[in-house]
Amino acid sequence: MRFILCILCLSASVVFAESKIYTLTLASSWGEQIPILGSAPYKVAKLAEEMSQGRLIIKVDLPQKHKAPLGIMDMVKEGLYDIGYTTPVYYKGKDYKLVFFMTVPFGMTTTEQYAWYYYGGGKTLSEKVYAPHGLISYPGGSVGISMGGWFKKEIVSLEDLKGLKIRISGQGGDVMARLGVNALSTSPGELYMAMETGLLDAVEWISPAFDMAMGFHKVAPYYYTGWSKPSGEGQYLVNQKKFHTLPQDLKRILESAIKITARELLDESNDANAKTWAKMQHEYPHIKINHFPKEVMNALKKAAHEVEEEQANKDALYKEILESQRSYIAKIRPWSMMGEVDYLSEIAK
Amino acid sequence: MRFILCILCLSASVVFAESKIYTLTLASSWGEQIPILGSAPYKVAKLAEEMSQGRLIIKVDLPQKHKAPLGIMDMVKEGLYDIGYTTPVYYKGKDYKLVFFMTVPFGMTTTEQYAWYYYGGGKTLSEKVYAPHGLISYPGGSVGISMGGWFKKEIVSLEDLKGLKIRISGQGGDVMARLGVNALSTSPGELYMAMETGLLDAVEWISPAFDMAMGFHKVAPYYYTGWSKPSGEGQYLVNQKKFHTLPQDLKRILESAIKITARELLDESNDANAKTWAKMQHEYPHIKINHFPKEVMNALKKAAHEVEEEQANKDALYKEILESQRSYIAKIRPWSMMGEVDYLSEIAK
Repeated sequence: MRFILCILCLSASVVFAESKIYTLTLASSWGEQIPILGSAPYKVAKLAEEMSQGRLIIKVDLPQKHKAPLGIMDMVKEGLYDIGYTTPVYYKGKDYKLVFFMTVPFGMTTTEQYAWYYYGGGKTLSEKVYAPHGLISYPGGSVGISMGGWFKKEIVSLEDLKGLKIRISGQGGDVMARLGVNALSTSPGELYMAMETGLLDAVEWISPAFDMAMGFHKVAPYYYTGWSKPSGEGQYLVNQKKFHTLPQDLKRILESAIKITARELLDESNDANAKTWAKMQHEYPHIKINHFPKEVMNALKKAAHEVEEEQANKDALYKEILESQRSYIAKIRPWSMMGEVDYLSEIAK
Repeated sequence: MRFILCILCLSASVVFAESKIYTLTLASSWGEQIPILGSAPYKVAKLAEEMSQGRLIIKVDLPQKHKAPLGIMDMVKEGLYDIGYTTPVYYKGKDYKLVFFMTVPFGMTTTEQYAWYYYGGGKTLSEKVYAPHGLISYPGGSVGISMGGWFKKEIVSLEDLKGLKIRISGQGGDVMARLGVNALSTSPGELYMAMETGLLDAVEWISPAFDMAMGFHKVAPYYYTGWSKPSGEGQYLVNQKKFHTLPQDLKRILESAIKITARELLDESNDANAKTWAKMQHEYPHIKINHFPKEVMNALKKAAHEVEEEQANKDALYKEILESQRSYIAKIRPWSMMGEVDYLSEIAK
């Protein structure tokens, strides 16, 4: 047993800080080559370490190490990792409700989704979904709205979609499938090759900054506008048992490091998209920006509604979240339109 | 001199945390009666205390105590308070450059402004502006876009603005003044009475949730859409000398508590605006939502440009920030329009 000299104890204003070092492991879905997402978990780790004076250490493993970019949720659930950095839609096969915490087709934008999550009941619903898995989920940062994807051929009618092999993640894939599309969930590292060799006819990935880094513009000239992922929210999953081994201050520090990194990820994405979009227009004039035809958009909306109704009939909690999001959109959308959309449209006139 | 038993020193993984208690004082521009803004600094204080295990204490004083809601900047500069919660535009009389860190007429929306601030050079420019004042400034949270204000009479032409007594803060006031308006900066607590007694003909305040709480709809039926404050950013000012007396971990904790509170303030504002907007449409159908006529909007744009050019000729750093924001808008606006604005407009069709 050792004694130390407590030089600070001479003053009355002294607290005895817990000083054990806690080390947590984190598995990420995205490697260093993926812009912005690749570096995000390192930012969480750095900030947590700084705020805790080195008492909270997070060790990050990338897919090349853990080999399971689409299996993060299970690894954290089983305690193989303490934290996962991933996105809820990768696990819709296990629990379809998870899609609500990323984004749904024709759903909320990032600002709307955050208002719903923090002030409209979303957080409580998230806890209802994740607690039975032994997990705590935090919004992990949005890349903003996603584009509708890169297509090798122009889509003029519904007929053109039939039989197309498209990589499209999340609920968008199930919606597209109803229109006769062969919706695939090819893993990120294989996408470019699949497009080049014809295994894929189209790919929905994210938005300009992320898409151009993947090189899709070299193999597919038609770039469609967004409908499937109005907000691309990631998530940090934390093993609940492990979380509760942390002292109170480190719990708050971990949450805060996640929250700040998540918010600044949207800024970084918007900045990168702005730059890439400007560059695209300039350097790649062959890229054709298209809206899907009205006929296709209507069919997508109808199919999205059908997918939702089907799930709602199977799962009461899914239904509760669906209704929460739908009624929230009904309330917040008129303000989105009256506020920023009106401003940006009016001053552009 | 005392000794304490270090029961944790038995393990190798031990750090000796600094354990002195630091107490900082904070003066806020807004009292408890102002929705959202009134409670924000208490949230910063609570989070900082939790993350620091009670080593960082922030004591909040409201205007009823310090009596200087529009004098926060000077009080923090002089060291009367360590932190101020306020908004840069209140101090444009001292330094016109400050307006850029809240918002400028026809400028960036909140998402655009954050991308500029964190990834487009804004933070560095902010430091250039505030360091000579001995201050560190942090974005304090945006209430989102502001409406154009409540008018007792409809504005049909430029002529209708001449001689009107309008409370309008920030650069918007200087712009309006060029159109013959008598632009006043009545303090928040006196606004309703001034409208009721005819000291004011119109008032630009914030947005539905904040405006309805002030009761303006009872005395002025015309509610104009926004142009003057596309993002209503607050700020936390910290006395630089005081900040540097904090140990490294508490510096990060203070910054983090501010950042999180600032971000969630936008969510809370959006949620409150969505609810209030819905309620307005329902319960107060007499409120008339108007755009200013094209003639007025064009005159406002021209006047805003003139105000900016005039300031740019007087102050090189103002000019540098103006050019930074203008070129950033040129880059990010096309992506704003192609992303969320296009999505929200298309699915509304």
